Amino acid sequence: MNNTITAPKGFLASGIVCGLKRSGKKDLGLLVCPTGAVAAGVFTTNKIYSAAVAVCKKNIRSAIIDGVVVNSGNANACTGLQGIKDANAMCQALADQIETSPKKILVASTGIIGHILPVKKVITGVARSIKCLASNHDAGLDFATAIMTTDTRPKQAFKQIKFGKTLVSIAGAVKGAGMIGPNMATTLCFITTDAAITKPLLARALSQAVGSSLNRLTVDGHQSTNDTALVLASGLAGNKKIAATGKDFSTFALALKDLCTDLAKQMALDAEGATRMFTVRVTGAASKEDAAKASRAVADYPLFKCAVHGSDPNWGRIICAVGSSQVKLKSEKVSCKLDNIVVFKNGRPTDFNPKKASKVMSQKEFTITIDLGVGKYSDFCYGCDLSREYIAINADYHT
Amino acid sequence: MNNTITAPKGFLASGIVCGLKRSGKKDLGLLVCPTGAVAAGVFTTNKIYSAAVAVCKKNIRSAIIDGVVVNSGNANACTGLQGIKDANAMCQALADQIETSPKKILVASTGIIGHILPVKKVITGVARSIKCLASNHDAGLDFATAIMTTDTRPKQAFKQIKFGKTLVSIAGAVKGAGMIGPNMATTLCFITTDAAITKPLLARALSQAVGSSLNRLTVDGHQSTNDTALVLASGLAGNKKIAATGKDFSTFALALKDLCTDLAKQMALDAEGATRMFTVRVTGAASKEDAAKASRAVADYPLFKCAVHGSDPNWGRIICAVGSSQVKLKSEKVSCKLDNIVVFKNGRPTDFNPKKASKVMSQKEFTITIDLGVGKYSDFCYGCDLSREYIAINADYHT
Repeated sequence: MNNTITAPKGFLASGIVCGLKRSGKKDLGLLVCPTGAVAAGVFTTNKIYSAAVAVCKKNIRSAIIDGVVVNSGNANACTGLQGIKDANAMCQALADQIETSPKKILVASTGIIGHILPVKKVITGVARSIKCLASNHDAGLDFATAIMTTDTRPKQAFKQIKFGKTLVSIAGAVKGAGMIGPNMATTLCFITTDAAITKPLLARALSQAVGSSLNRLTVDGHQSTNDTALVLASGLAGNKKIAATGKDFSTFALALKDLCTDLAKQMALDAEGATRMFTVRVTGAASKEDAAKASRAVADYPLFKCAVHGSDPNWGRIICAVGSSQVKLKSEKVSCKLDNIVVFKNGRPTDFNPKKASKVMSQKEFTITIDLGVGKYSDFCYGCDLSREYIAINADYHT
Repeated sequence: MNNTITAPKGFLASGIVCGLKRSGKKDLGLLVCPTGAVAAGVFTTNKIYSAAVAVCKKNIRSAIIDGVVVNSGNANACTGLQGIKDANAMCQALADQIETSPKKILVASTGIIGHILPVKKVITGVARSIKCLASNHDAGLDFATAIMTTDTRPKQAFKQIKFGKTLVSIAGAVKGAGMIGPNMATTLCFITTDAAITKPLLARALSQAVGSSLNRLTVDGHQSTNDTALVLASGLAGNKKIAATGKDFSTFALALKDLCTDLAKQMALDAEGATRMFTVRVTGAASKEDAAKASRAVADYPLFKCAVHGSDPNWGRIICAVGSSQVKLKSEKVSCKLDNIVVFKNGRPTDFNPKKASKVMSQKEFTITIDLGVGKYSDFCYGCDLSREYIAINADYHT
């Protein structure tokens, strides 16, 4: 069964080697919607953003988008005016091939920052890649592979929902691995759907979905210069066009959120050097902001990430991170659980079974819950462990 | 020559094994000033702080302090009311031995969070340790050793200044290694001086000194529950008592700051797993706060810390961290230097020699300078590299 981004009706994809990566691996992806799609995007809020992001932000204003061109191996960031020219040239190359305007093409890049993009390789790659465009499983997988950097595996998700008897499909591919912190936690994320939906509502659904999924993931605390999440809707499913908020919109938005959550968790588990992931849930906070801040402080704390790697129920590091985040709390009311094991209650250690707690932390996925004891607000954050492999990937890799 | 905390006139110290550490290493330090000292302290701003900090904050209000008792191996943090009783019992134990009030004793603890302190071991240890008190080099070194946790070596500093013909000494011992982030970056720091100075001015000098030294160091981003920096002044040097701001105060304050900077750098170099340290200096910022925020974002960024470990001049990670910190900047004006090598200028990469840049980064100590191009403010932060050893120390260590 095709469960890739070519599964929703109306999309063709490809992924080839155009020669940007020293490893010789796939580094150019195309996504084309021959009938035209409405599109929405969410981008990095890093004040330094790539040329690809600058051009993509401009082009996404077009009412109809015909295709997306993505390269890995070079971020085209911190590359000045030349970078903008190169990002536009990427759009032009795909537009020439599918006979449309470059304004109707979206562009994304990922890889090393600050190196001028060898744009000729990309342009000749686009011409070759056109011939590989297909709507089958392999083509979708090739695309998901071509956007990878330090990812160890392609990350994809697929969902179907029904509006009456009409089946609507949503599919996504992401790359992740490093330089990931809210918001945007995505690095690159491409979603296709055959739903018929207006552009403003598609944008709204994407923004909501990303806000409670990809934006809750932190691997190493900083968002990159290139983060981009795009959704393209071909409208070919045959559903009554979603043109107002209401039941259909809610159904679509929820499915999109579930898909993005699935992708975010895959990213956590395939983060650089990660062997497991966790959810930090903070409850009893004085505000939603406090809950978000405290959960992120724990998820980002290297000492705790190491404890997770070692399956060590060292809750002291959790409490230290929470207190250090300067959120409102009552120290004599603070409690902490590892899944269902209470390790700290009302500001005091409990008599828990360390072996059982260690077992909880050795799972592929577990949840830390911290109650601040001052209010009714809660929020969460996804994180992953910190291993020697993270150091190996990022210290031994040379620019 | 004695260059330990017993070097200034009027101080005795000791460091022994009282049995808190499984390793069997020294874990109890005493510092005594038989003639009484004026004292000042700076403490963690973590909202969860140890019982030792709670008791020390109270006792330091006393006009005269007679001694300090410190244990390593147990933080006495998150230990509820029992923790407070135990911290008071530590003060009482030393007070009994030197026949003073427990209110005139300061206390500090460091080690694992959330375990009830085996206080009897400490109390009997204090009685034994009294007999080892001495004012020589070995006694000072024993103290500096007894406060260590994951530190690989004792860290001490010594300075002398002259007021006319009067020689004044200042000495300090710190422990560091992990759970270190502004403010307070110290974990534990003990400073002695024989200067005659009033309590309020001593407090002012300490606060200034710590603010521009120990508080600028980040190892892993979070301050601990136990951070404490104490200074005791015996007044035995014979200088005219410093009772007002002016030349003598400035001389003393500057010497104290230099001493603290020396200690902070030693901590960076002996941070968990660290092989080198760096200074991040941000210039051209719109405000001092922006400069501090941006410098810390770089110093705390795991991806950059890994690049330092690998001597990789991957300045893209520096620029990414700066942009992600959301400070005001002009992207077309941003520049970056590694020591004197310009790697990024006016928002564009330069044609630098990567081998030379890599050599800069392989030094024991180097400076990254980032200009934001928007204002006249600057600030700095100290950091260290991130190595496999950090993971080993913090993932393999079990509670």
